[in-house]
Amino acid sequence: MTSNQHITVETLYASPSEVRAFVAALLVAHGLTEDDARIAADCLVRADLRGVDTHGIAWLPGYLDRLRRNLINPRPSLQPRRITPAVSHLDGENGFGFVVATRAMAEAMDLASATGIGIVSVKRSTHFGMAASYLLQAVEAGFVALVFTNASRAMPPWGGREALLGTSPFAAGAPGGEKGAFILDMAPSVAARGKIRKALRLGQAIPPDYALDADGRPTTDPARALEGVVLPMGGPKGSGLAMLMDIFGGVLSGAAFAGDVRDQYKSFDAPQNVGHFFLAMKPNLFVGLDEYRARMDVLFERVRSSPPAEGFTEILTPGEPEARQEARRLRSGIPYPKDDLEPLFAEARKIGLEPIPTYDRPLGGSIS
Amino acid sequence: MTSNQHITVETLYASPSEVRAFVAALLVAHGLTEDDARIAADCLVRADLRGVDTHGIAWLPGYLDRLRRNLINPRPSLQPRRITPAVSHLDGENGFGFVVATRAMAEAMDLASATGIGIVSVKRSTHFGMAASYLLQAVEAGFVALVFTNASRAMPPWGGREALLGTSPFAAGAPGGEKGAFILDMAPSVAARGKIRKALRLGQAIPPDYALDADGRPTTDPARALEGVVLPMGGPKGSGLAMLMDIFGGVLSGAAFAGDVRDQYKSFDAPQNVGHFFLAMKPNLFVGLDEYRARMDVLFERVRSSPPAEGFTEILTPGEPEARQEARRLRSGIPYPKDDLEPLFAEARKIGLEPIPTYDRPLGGSIS
Repeated sequence: MTSNQHITVETLYASPSEVRAFVAALLVAHGLTEDDARIAADCLVRADLRGVDTHGIAWLPGYLDRLRRNLINPRPSLQPRRITPAVSHLDGENGFGFVVATRAMAEAMDLASATGIGIVSVKRSTHFGMAASYLLQAVEAGFVALVFTNASRAMPPWGGREALLGTSPFAAGAPGGEKGAFILDMAPSVAARGKIRKALRLGQAIPPDYALDADGRPTTDPARALEGVVLPMGGPKGSGLAMLMDIFGGVLSGAAFAGDVRDQYKSFDAPQNVGHFFLAMKPNLFVGLDEYRARMDVLFERVRSSPPAEGFTEILTPGEPEARQEARRLRSGIPYPKDDLEPLFAEARKIGLEPIPTYDRPLGGSIS
Repeated sequence: MTSNQHITVETLYASPSEVRAFVAALLVAHGLTEDDARIAADCLVRADLRGVDTHGIAWLPGYLDRLRRNLINPRPSLQPRRITPAVSHLDGENGFGFVVATRAMAEAMDLASATGIGIVSVKRSTHFGMAASYLLQAVEAGFVALVFTNASRAMPPWGGREALLGTSPFAAGAPGGEKGAFILDMAPSVAARGKIRKALRLGQAIPPDYALDADGRPTTDPARALEGVVLPMGGPKGSGLAMLMDIFGGVLSGAAFAGDVRDQYKSFDAPQNVGHFFLAMKPNLFVGLDEYRARMDVLFERVRSSPPAEGFTEILTPGEPEARQEARRLRSGIPYPKDDLEPLFAEARKIGLEPIPTYDRPLGGSIS
């Protein structure tokens, strides 16, 4: 391990609406319809707004690459097949995960509007980015929601040392009253690989429960950890959750599963065949809507006013840090590392698209 | 901390079917119907068979006490109200949680049989023991299932130091092929209070992430931990799951929530008003049943044959340790600490019921 060192990352700010239009234009140039391009751009930019940079526009060059390789179908015909009044199946036809997932969640909400609850199972999809995107779609339309997906190999089952399961999130959301919504989007691993990469860059050790090295031994060295695997959160618990995501996402739907979902950054022989599962439910099936909202407010109020433990100054509800970040970045613009923007601007130049303006300081005020 | 010391716990074995009949007789004597008594006895004894002693017959005296205080209603009229073809609501009328939950899961399966999926929300229930009991009912009948419940205060939200949320499990199950079913029943806390009590008894320290003392500080002293609170698993993740259980169990159903579910061991002024949520789903909505079962077998085979990490000799799937324990105890009988049986036999003597035979060694062979 080297000692700590200063890392200078040049940060540039951009306007969310300009980024959104820019991303949509890149996607239209790669064959998506205007509508579908806007859906994908909304999801990507919303991830950046919420500080979930691991699912934002920095990953767009990879998606564009797969579009050009015909591994993402820019024009799927998305026709959910109704199996019962509460159940639909959607063949994603290898479409862009953002578009497929948005279509599926819309169908789940349609089913739930009529039957109280609706589920949609999806096969032949691709990476859909931030699961919270679809929770937010449902919650903002007034529905309780679950969003499950499987993913390519990234984590061993508990007790193992080779990646087999995905680090697909468990995601659940519920509309709130006046105190905001409940948005839980949690990976089943102790820590994201991104955190380990950051420790490497900063020359820091990682806690011993984050990862195993290539020999299956716990390690605090981020370089050795990156050659190995991240560990499931809570041992058998995170491992069980990851299997559950594979059962709901892959086994039930007819998609790839059990380690067969292709890695979008490593596997270029065929589309990924990701599987998803969406559930939407009316919140006022058993109590009235006003009562539901008032009850959510009571829960949030009691959680937030809990006396803090040593080292804490406030208690946040799930999704609250991201909602705060979104409110800040809607004012300040989104800060991007310059190194993340360059490849996007290079993509733009290839197709004669003008890069968007960027600024070396926050727009319209400082970041609090 | 004292140093390690030998603890002698006298263990007695009993036949599962004799225990079941004994428990049912005690419950009938407290006003339950024969059918309902058998349901509750099945759940309690199955927990003991599976090694989930924290939800077994050792807790029966507490339940009987609440029956005698009229805080559990021995004769609820359980009439699920159908709200849509996929949705029912059940007023548990303060009935025994085992009976209420079994009725609700049966209704969810009825709905799912017709509509592919069914959900049942329950209010005015009481503690329902092991969540896996209801997963097993569904899975053994061929359904995928989710079982959520809320519970009395036991754990702070992440960052807090006072108990507000329950340690209600997140529970999910799915039928398998030839390699067994998937049964995930996981508390959102790092460790159960039972583990901390055991460390105290053995004079051992506990890991620093298990609990806070009464001042909200991490502690490795089990005595101080028991004066404080257990911590959520994975920090905000376990805390978020516990809130989700309270939303699905309590907020939506009309039951008590946000810390208002009464503690069955401390609160004797009114029934608990626990809320539950049950989901049942056909596994063959999107692929055929044979294909579904074959896919589950592939997943289980790949998980179990994963190369083990240092310190592990085999990889188990969720529910597999409990299924193995159940197979062993069906042969050996169930081992009980003598101290757990005495109060039950005292209850039996009160009503002129004969205690069951117990043995100082395993029945029909040794425990492997």
